[in-house]
Amino acid sequence: MKTSTYKVAIVGASGFTGSELTRLLSGHPNVEIAHITSESHAGKPFSALHPQFLNIVDKTLEKASVVDDAELDIIFLALPHGVSMEFVKRWKDKKSKIIDLSGDFRLSSPEVYESWYQKNHSFQEGFGKAVYGLPELKAEEVKNSNLIANPGCYPTASILSVAPLFAADLVEADSLIIDAKSGLTGAGIKASETTHFSNVNDNFKAYGIGVHRHTVEIEEQLSSLSGKKVRIQFTPHLIPADRGILVTAYARPNQEMNSKKLFDIYNDFYKDKPFVRVRNTGPSIKDVRGSHYCDVFPYWDSRTERIISIAAIDNLLKGAASEAVHNMNLMLGLEERSGLNQIPLRP
Amino acid sequence: MKTSTYKVAIVGASGFTGSELTRLLSGHPNVEIAHITSESHAGKPFSALHPQFLNIVDKTLEKASVVDDAELDIIFLALPHGVSMEFVKRWKDKKSKIIDLSGDFRLSSPEVYESWYQKNHSFQEGFGKAVYGLPELKAEEVKNSNLIANPGCYPTASILSVAPLFAADLVEADSLIIDAKSGLTGAGIKASETTHFSNVNDNFKAYGIGVHRHTVEIEEQLSSLSGKKVRIQFTPHLIPADRGILVTAYARPNQEMNSKKLFDIYNDFYKDKPFVRVRNTGPSIKDVRGSHYCDVFPYWDSRTERIISIAAIDNLLKGAASEAVHNMNLMLGLEERSGLNQIPLRP
Amino acid sequence: MKTSTYKVAIVGASGFTGSELTRLLSGHPNVEIAHITSESHAGKPFSALHPQFLNIVDKTLEKASVVDDAELDIIFLALPHGVSMEFVKRWKDKKSKIIDLSGDFRLSSPEVYESWYQKNHSFQEGFGKAVYGLPELKAEEVKNSNLIANPGCYPTASILSVAPLFAADLVEADSLIIDAKSGLTGAGIKASETTHFSNVNDNFKAYGIGVHRHTVEIEEQLSSLSGKKVRIQFTPHLIPADRGILVTAYARPNQEMNSKKLFDIYNDFYKDKPFVRVRNTGPSIKDVRGSHYCDVFPYWDSRTERIISIAAIDNLLKGAASEAVHNMNLMLGLEERSGLNQIPLRP
Amino acid sequence: MKTSTYKVAIVGASGFTGSELTRLLSGHPNVEIAHITSESHAGKPFSALHPQFLNIVDKTLEKASVVDDAELDIIFLALPHGVSMEFVKRWKDKKSKIIDLSGDFRLSSPEVYESWYQKNHSFQEGFGKAVYGLPELKAEEVKNSNLIANPGCYPTASILSVAPLFAADLVEADSLIIDAKSGLTGAGIKASETTHFSNVNDNFKAYGIGVHRHTVEIEEQLSSLSGKKVRIQFTPHLIPADRGILVTAYARPNQEMNSKKLFDIYNDFYKDKPFVRVRNTGPSIKDVRGSHYCDVFPYWDSRTERIISIAAIDNLLKGAASEAVHNMNLMLGLEERSGLNQIPLRP
Repeated sequence: MKTSTYKVAIVGASGFTGSELTRLLSGHPNVEIAHITSESHAGKPFSALHPQFLNIVDKTLEKASVVDDAELDIIFLALPHGVSMEFVKRWKDKKSKIIDLSGDFRLSSPEVYESWYQKNHSFQEGFGKAVYGLPELKAEEVKNSNLIANPGCYPTASILSVAPLFAADLVEADSLIIDAKSGLTGAGIKASETTHFSNVNDNFKAYGIGVHRHTVEIEEQLSSLSGKKVRIQFTPHLIPADRGILVTAYARPNQEMNSKKLFDIYNDFYKDKPFVRVRNTGPSIKDVRGSHYCDVFPYWDSRTERIISIAAIDNLLKGAASEAVHNMNLMLGLEERSGLNQIPLRP
Repeated sequence: MKTSTYKVAIVGASGFTGSELTRLLSGHPNVEIAHITSESHAGKPFSALHPQFLNIVDKTLEKASVVDDAELDIIFLALPHGVSMEFVKRWKDKKSKIIDLSGDFRLSSPEVYESWYQKNHSFQEGFGKAVYGLPELKAEEVKNSNLIANPGCYPTASILSVAPLFAADLVEADSLIIDAKSGLTGAGIKASETTHFSNVNDNFKAYGIGVHRHTVEIEEQLSSLSGKKVRIQFTPHLIPADRGILVTAYARPNQEMNSKKLFDIYNDFYKDKPFVRVRNTGPSIKDVRGSHYCDVFPYWDSRTERIISIAAIDNLLKGAASEAVHNMNLMLGLEERSGLNQIPLRP
Repeated sequence: MKTSTYKVAIVGASGFTGSELTRLLSGHPNVEIAHITSESHAGKPFSALHPQFLNIVDKTLEKASVVDDAELDIIFLALPHGVSMEFVKRWKDKKSKIIDLSGDFRLSSPEVYESWYQKNHSFQEGFGKAVYGLPELKAEEVKNSNLIANPGCYPTASILSVAPLFAADLVEADSLIIDAKSGLTGAGIKASETTHFSNVNDNFKAYGIGVHRHTVEIEEQLSSLSGKKVRIQFTPHLIPADRGILVTAYARPNQEMNSKKLFDIYNDFYKDKPFVRVRNTGPSIKDVRGSHYCDVFPYWDSRTERIISIAAIDNLLKGAASEAVHNMNLMLGLEERSGLNQIPLRP
Repeated sequence: MKTSTYKVAIVGASGFTGSELTRLLSGHPNVEIAHITSESHAGKPFSALHPQFLNIVDKTLEKASVVDDAELDIIFLALPHGVSMEFVKRWKDKKSKIIDLSGDFRLSSPEVYESWYQKNHSFQEGFGKAVYGLPELKAEEVKNSNLIANPGCYPTASILSVAPLFAADLVEADSLIIDAKSGLTGAGIKASETTHFSNVNDNFKAYGIGVHRHTVEIEEQLSSLSGKKVRIQFTPHLIPADRGILVTAYARPNQEMNSKKLFDIYNDFYKDKPFVRVRNTGPSIKDVRGSHYCDVFPYWDSRTERIISIAAIDNLLKGAASEAVHNMNLMLGLEERSGLNQIPLRP
């Protein structure tokens, strides 16, 4: 294990992801945060945007241009999709490794990107270089990569809920339905009708039915994992809660199944993955809040002959910021768990 | 339309259902509440239990025995299952019509009841007399019945979400998956670990996976509607909200489908049903809160070739108390909408 | 009691107040809603803005200019302050009576207005005509007025919490402290950092400390009631809830006090006021949610020799829309309770 | 700084405080948790009670009797008041230092305890030995003590909100009013009507008006600090949130005051106190959630001539568990901040 201190920059500090990255990296034993940037708030202290950091991280926000000539080990991009690609392009010849938390390099090709994101892609060569940074599936590729496409929040929970099944090709074609539910922070920090308290509190609804961009991200990863073309049904819903994603996945097995066999498959698949906890009861989103854990509960319904798998994560952490730190640890040769030992905050 | 005043009793006033029944019936133009009973609180004013009723309904609570000799048009039973059957038996020879809000007479036979409720049934002859009181499907039977089994909250939303499809036999066998979400009041007024604020607030989880009693209730009604044996997958979840059920139903059609055809089927089926609103966007539970409406949004996903149907109700009203009043209106020959004109309370 | 049908217009339908006014007036037995206006949404159905009204109020929204030549009994202005005054001026010669729900005519003079609202007033002669429409204090003036300044939400709860004390001049000068708490809808329907779910949910904070505009509104009314200049301390806080205001008022009596005397004073003062309920335990905001009630609990702390009075209202109803309907009833000579019989929605 | 590892026991692990103590101490660099006890759950793994700890703290729960012969540096008592005193008595001759998180030794005498807790005290000699463990006021006494009475949650926030004023005797006698608001976890883990979700969610109310036990705890500490008998008004309210206390304190100064002077007094008083952050805007409870910080905002209202001071803490941490760890650090001669570097979790 190396123990040097690495220099990192967080580009885009005004949103939830930038804030959570800063929180985790401030406490990481092997990291120094060299720069935090925000185009619109440069010059202010970081804690002016995120008051919980007062007296803890009061570092002055800078323009992203400060990164141009900085020697950095890791650059985190916590930017909206469409913006992120510009910086990946701009810094493509720097020695720094890049971890991009946007959706710009998660898909297999510019064509797929343009079809689901309704937007041209300005750095197509990035697709050949980017590794999809889901450590439970891609640890080796991540270690050797210079550009990480950090997974989406829904895809993280969705893929981990069924990866053991698809890795062993146990699921009937096109039978997977993922009914997903997310806390409101998944909608971002921007004020809108969607994020208005009175539309969320004491309420519940589905959205993006049939057209959510995470659908194709999940399909591509499960296809790659199983070696077969996978088509899924994906429906996201909004929970009146700050953080957390819970996915309820339904699938038909393509062979005999029973409860013991199912648990064995999951336990075996995740036995060396310290942040996936296979549970024998259904998890709740508070069981993982504030932590890097993904809790999974696989269930065999012998009456209906379906597998139901429920997974829970903190969308801002395992679904974003802590996943990025996990990827960083792998890229820098650090202990996988380094800086990720937060115990879930409950109640 | 008759305009006389009918006498009713509400048996079991300490829970949410008894409270909501009292609220609705207090404002009903054709009804006089003759008695409200509670074994454990008899002698106290109703408003001592439910402080929102102060100066509005301060009527003294009585023991259920007061009903034995009372001349009543309708008796509402707002009691736990297992208790309700005893009163149906006790009052079986009274002239009063009974509307039972428990699960005791919703299923097709004592055997099915005992298998899913893990409890002996003490009044088996009730099964032959009870009508399943879902007015959108059974208005005629309800009008002629003396014993109504008022539907469960999840079954109400679930059945209404797909009834047009099953009535026309448009769904592939065993393909229906209902992913259901309910506000906490569905768990009742009793204090428990489940209802503790810190386990619910900012949280979300599934429960009763594969074994919830409402599964068989839905299956029996859809089987009856389609004339074929239906087996469904039903998974309930807990929303950190007071009221409201949202169900997301997934089904494969057994024939060609398209979006227009789907909407036509729903609009046609519900055209004379004043309390079902077919929407062209996904409803939220606040869109129906405090009202007798069921909002339904059918969606055809041509990419995956699945029908998704989303329905929202207020679990305490359309899923319990206002449904009982609707049944009462039909049984007494009153205008169907009488006393049920509440506009949803939003925000 | 008159029983004719009166024509009303609701000017400004996009906010919470316009929506609640529409809900109440739709169910009012003596009213026909002739027009609902919205400058930015004219041409759309009302239910497109407020989806809970689908199939109930689908009336087309119009421009406010439709009111210019319309014969109306009452015009409700549900507009932001600063905008409202323009319409009061524009329609000052119409025969219609105006109920203004903004803050534009609540204060005693243009000077006071300009000092607290930091804004010029364009219709100063309105101050001489407007009656402060708090029916529990001003029923007679309201009946004879053509222009009502509908009270603010905090002032309604605050004034009613202590009116019996000030009417009898029982409070020591400058001793009144009002610590007030409001649900988020008090901040309006506009999306902003303040109304973002993640800033409100599971959170609590004070705001507007020492400078909130409602301070002077409360001071002026209590001064007028007691005949002495009153200076108060007023601190509002934000509750992570949709609706409801709870105020905790602290005051020193200027004479001997005891618990019985205190209750007698309150009960006597409110004995003919059907919508104020004097309670003998502390109310909660859910005890009045969705209703026109104000619940008040006066408490004498003999240890500290202070009176504590707690009042709860629904800020969108007793603090806005239902108060306006109450004023309308008085202005039209209708029964005071007409259209205001909603029982609080709890849970 | 010493760096040895100290052995601790947590007695009473089933509640929120025991759970949070375990979370903090698991991550403390100088501590080994030797025993965790629960009379009713002995034999089960800790994570069976608190599922968020799965794979993190699966240690088997033991009976408290295991502590009798154990060599321990610190014993934490996370027990209900009335129970705690029995263990303090039982272990009074052990060499271990005790940190009691109950209310049993916080007050000045058995008489005061019995008067406010309505309960006999079975270990009166404890009063002479116990130190009130508020590190910002009593660090030196804590360092030399063997028995710490860990402060109540409301008193921690209340005292810190005004300590600089009372230490300098700047407040007019009997003028202090503390209007306090707490998240629901302050009511404990036990299921009851009070903790039922439907009574808390979207709701707000006052409770314990005039009689809450924390009143006397605050009075005694402020009296001790100022050298004068202090009598306060204290009113707690329930916030529909999990964690957090916000107090709004009102006081009259007994001398000339202005804004700069007020801030200087606070900044000076807290300049070496790393966990009190003097803010220049009002804090919210989320600004400190999950952390050991107390945020304070003092405000001078020149119009009313009152000081308003607002303080926010996490009731389970600065108001309980992290305060206990802070006291432990002082007692063991460790760095004050050790194990307490959690950054607030927001959103």
